[in-house]
Amino acid sequence: MNIAVVGLGLIGGSLALRLADAGHPVSGWDSDLATRSAAGTAGIAVGAGLGDAVAAADVVVLAVPLTTLTGAVAEIAGLLPPDAVLTDVGSVKGPAYAAARRAGLAGRFVGGHPMAGKEFAGFAAAERTLFDGATWVLGLEPDTVLAHWLKLARLLTGIGARVVPAAAADHDAAVARISHLPHLLAAAVASVASAGGPLALSLAAGSFRDGTRVAGSPPDLSIAMCRDNAAAVDVAVAETVQLLAEDAAVLLRSGHAVRSGWPPPAVDGPPLDPADMTLRERLLDLGRRGGWLSAVADDVLSVQGPA
Amino acid sequence: MNIAVVGLGLIGGSLALRLADAGHPVSGWDSDLATRSAAGTAGIAVGAGLGDAVAAADVVVLAVPLTTLTGAVAEIAGLLPPDAVLTDVGSVKGPAYAAARRAGLAGRFVGGHPMAGKEFAGFAAAERTLFDGATWVLGLEPDTVLAHWLKLARLLTGIGARVVPAAAADHDAAVARISHLPHLLAAAVASVASAGGPLALSLAAGSFRDGTRVAGSPPDLSIAMCRDNAAAVDVAVAETVQLLAEDAAVLLRSGHAVRSGWPPPAVDGPPLDPADMTLRERLLDLGRRGGWLSAVADDVLSVQGPA
Repeated sequence: MNIAVVGLGLIGGSLALRLADAGHPVSGWDSDLATRSAAGTAGIAVGAGLGDAVAAADVVVLAVPLTTLTGAVAEIAGLLPPDAVLTDVGSVKGPAYAAARRAGLAGRFVGGHPMAGKEFAGFAAAERTLFDGATWVLGLEPDTVLAHWLKLARLLTGIGARVVPAAAADHDAAVARISHLPHLLAAAVASVASAGGPLALSLAAGSFRDGTRVAGSPPDLSIAMCRDNAAAVDVAVAETVQLLAEDAAVLLRSGHAVRSGWPPPAVDGPPLDPADMTLRERLLDLGRRGGWLSAVADDVLSVQGPA
Repeated sequence: MNIAVVGLGLIGGSLALRLADAGHPVSGWDSDLATRSAAGTAGIAVGAGLGDAVAAADVVVLAVPLTTLTGAVAEIAGLLPPDAVLTDVGSVKGPAYAAARRAGLAGRFVGGHPMAGKEFAGFAAAERTLFDGATWVLGLEPDTVLAHWLKLARLLTGIGARVVPAAAADHDAAVARISHLPHLLAAAVASVASAGGPLALSLAAGSFRDGTRVAGSPPDLSIAMCRDNAAAVDVAVAETVQLLAEDAAVLLRSGHAVRSGWPPPAVDGPPLDPADMTLRERLLDLGRRGGWLSAVADDVLSVQGPA
């Protein structure tokens, strides 16, 4: 498969390096000259322009920041080869699908979200191992062309990712709870600690350090995530506020029970048949049950999930 | 100095091992037979009973769980040699001082709090290096005998801890912000994530893992901390709820600014004179400014803090 990776920051750069290692022809592009130069030095083929990078692609991965995704989808739509599938790596999926539909790409766009960020950004932070065992959501909408979806799922399981099928709205509701809420609460702990003055900050130790770690990540990205997923974030925040108003002992016991059981041990599940007429529903059901695809072949989809 | 360590779990066990390494005669005691046996095997002298362990001590360290601290203070009061100083390691200081005063130990009790917990408990988790560079608050009240306070400060800086002087109320307000609040929010994130079902928990990655880490610690201890420090915890929670109701972008930027500047670089400050008549106020001021004692000698107290 010919792959074009547009945006060579942490995620795009790591993906381009890993896919090239796996033997795929990869062409890369980034709007930043220094990034293109660094990627070229690292062995990624960088063409003369965006159109050049995308021209021969079977798969185009838009790995640009969330803040520029909508514009990038519109721009790429006019350059995409007729049979190519377009995916992205943004942390909110609803607006990405909306942008793709507006650009006439309904069915050819499969929104993606690798759960593999870290505090550092840019090609310099890229790592070939970033996606080993990482969860990678692939959006599955009523209008998604399943052949495109399976092509991407095969590509990503092939580099070691766990591919979770999910509807965009379900994905966005879930990440509000497990990612966007922790970003907001990390910022809140940092602010409340700071309001306690230098004594509080000098006493801050392990629970502060870990609980605020993601507050160290670039705030523009966190702000964009929370803004683009505002409705789901509001639900998660409202639930949090309600829990904080209730009995602390109950909250601490419940939280302990959840955290102690996470992550649950994974076991192999019954494989799925790519020719099954109900495959779309079976895939979405797999994702809702906490499962994922671990390998994709022509005749069988290997499945894992909680015991 | 003869040291008795009562309670040989993670904190008491680590302290007994480290003090013995530093050449202090250490006697230990724990109400649990298996713990006494494990400590004895590790080279800690364990006597025939609590009174035996305490009889010759210059310093008695009560390292029992917060849930049993009040009873332990009352019990030890009748056994404490006349010139010995009593300290503890609990994470809330107000109730510890109240218990000590009720037991007739005003002035001889110096509440302590090493900021060095971890998710694992018990003597098996004890580590000689647990307090290297760790912050260790020593409470300084109007009725604290300064000679007792300085004796403990010398002992603890001697094993590599940063000794922060603080009034009990100031300590409790600070730890509500930097420790008890993170415990509650970690539990809240775990609970809100769980309410999102298996899909949410299967997508949970770095920000969930770090943001909920302390929810894995024993809930009885977290519950006791939050209960014994309820007033200060309520203030921290109320500030958090208010921040969450305001603009997310403002919150995320403020939190990022605080986290990026933490911990501030430490520099040596002007040393303190143990004979200074205003030493108590100078020590409390040092703590309020985010500073600590790094070494205690007869004629000079070495000081560090934020630049």
